[in-house]
Amino acid sequence: MEEIKIFAPASVANISCGFDVLGFCLDPIGDIMHVSKTETPGVQIGTVTGQELPIDPLKNVASVAVSALLEAHPSKKGFRIDIDKRIKPGSGIGSSAASAAGAVFAVNELLGKPYSRNELVQFAMAGEALASGAAHADNLAPVLLGGFTLVRCNNTLDILKLPTPPDLFATVIHPKIELKTIHSRAILKNEIPLKKAVAQWGNVGAFVSALYTQDYELLSRSMQDEVIEPLRSMLIPKFNEVKQAALASGALGSGISGSGPSIYALSKGKAMAIKVGDAMKTFYDQIGLDYDIHISSINEKGIKIL
Amino acid sequence: MEEIKIFAPASVANISCGFDVLGFCLDPIGDIMHVSKTETPGVQIGTVTGQELPIDPLKNVASVAVSALLEAHPSKKGFRIDIDKRIKPGSGIGSSAASAAGAVFAVNELLGKPYSRNELVQFAMAGEALASGAAHADNLAPVLLGGFTLVRCNNTLDILKLPTPPDLFATVIHPKIELKTIHSRAILKNEIPLKKAVAQWGNVGAFVSALYTQDYELLSRSMQDEVIEPLRSMLIPKFNEVKQAALASGALGSGISGSGPSIYALSKGKAMAIKVGDAMKTFYDQIGLDYDIHISSINEKGIKIL
Repeated sequence: MEEIKIFAPASVANISCGFDVLGFCLDPIGDIMHVSKTETPGVQIGTVTGQELPIDPLKNVASVAVSALLEAHPSKKGFRIDIDKRIKPGSGIGSSAASAAGAVFAVNELLGKPYSRNELVQFAMAGEALASGAAHADNLAPVLLGGFTLVRCNNTLDILKLPTPPDLFATVIHPKIELKTIHSRAILKNEIPLKKAVAQWGNVGAFVSALYTQDYELLSRSMQDEVIEPLRSMLIPKFNEVKQAALASGALGSGISGSGPSIYALSKGKAMAIKVGDAMKTFYDQIGLDYDIHISSINEKGIKIL
Repeated sequence: MEEIKIFAPASVANISCGFDVLGFCLDPIGDIMHVSKTETPGVQIGTVTGQELPIDPLKNVASVAVSALLEAHPSKKGFRIDIDKRIKPGSGIGSSAASAAGAVFAVNELLGKPYSRNELVQFAMAGEALASGAAHADNLAPVLLGGFTLVRCNNTLDILKLPTPPDLFATVIHPKIELKTIHSRAILKNEIPLKKAVAQWGNVGAFVSALYTQDYELLSRSMQDEVIEPLRSMLIPKFNEVKQAALASGALGSGISGSGPSIYALSKGKAMAIKVGDAMKTFYDQIGLDYDIHISSINEKGIKIL
């Protein structure tokens, strides 16, 4: 195979109680990447459409991730990456993760699949480190593995795929302000109360259990975050109103997507996810703040070859 | 029914990563309780054998729990509780939980089962509050529901029963020093590092997943506790040596049982649990510290009618 075209999806990390560990993969929104072999070794960025991204291979998340892979698995050929960037950087739905994971996935295919999807996470981490200052696998995991994922340990990259209850749909609204992950990390406190930590890990355990048992009520009760959300939500206009509107409309739960500013909700059924989206956007319509809104099933496959 | 005899089992709470939320039920060790109706309303403690316990109904965990039940569901009859107390108070395997849960379970049976096992937790909490100063459901849940349990929320008593992988056995060693829950709570810090909290809730999520998928390797990797164990283990003689010996012998994981001083291990297969116990006791034999040791399957039923 000399070239490949793939769809690298957006994703939601930091699902309420699961800061830095729980994420899920979105479906309709994602980048289109075209990767082809070149005669010159190394990696280069070709054309970038949709968004402005660095062309310098040392500064682009996709090429940095591929370089990490090529250090472990050198190739006599080189690779050119063309990106139709449809996920907005800084929107909180894993823009850099899609680029990094998509690029290593594509190159791995062109090399004859020396690595499993799980093993590719380690290389994509180099891209995430460039983007956010600290490498976290909580967006990469759902993009590469699909569905819901848990990062048990970010150091050893011990990552699990969790089951997806049928009939679960996501609503994601992106108010168009830009929030860099590095800034939303800075607002967090280094220490948290033990009581809140206990509440959080009780909820993480219940959330995971609810995915296995398809218990939507339990899923709903467990989607609480008293640790991160109270701090980060201050950076997101009308966060509390939007979240409460989602819940009042029938969403199972709602919270900050990744490090924001996007806000996600999970609902039972597509019709409910649309209704929830209509309720969420009211507040941004009122204040005249531009936004994007996405309704998505849970993408069980992650990255797809086109 | 005028009288009932029950077995109220011991239990292990605070399973490594799951401080205050995860517990499981033991099998061979537990109290025998005999509860009979009396003509005089109210509750009285009859004979107590095995251990010294208060006879005053206001000071005995079992009668205090029953009084809480009788406030919600008054009866014209009264109840007399005779206890053969086989679990040592202060040993860290849910002595007060067995008394409290056993008593409300027995009285509920004699009243014609107005409450589910799940609903009985709220009344047994009154007994736990008397015993430890703060009421926690993490021992009551496994005693009443059996198997592995998760307390999602201690305030609303949102409690789940989790699946038990087959072939899992517990080893529990009780070095005979007495540790009151109230004292091992005092050693804890009110604030913990966010990084450690994230590691802990990643492990709780993975532990719950491992129970559903019967993934013993993952169960083993998730049995980590960097938050509570480093503090509380200082109160337990030779803790680190005993734990390391358990792991070196093949245990999947090991940690403090409840608030200690008992130390538990989980192993695959009964033969391994026995081998692990032999390794654990070596250190107490060396220093001449008396101990009890128990090998137990996971008690899926919890309290049993005899």
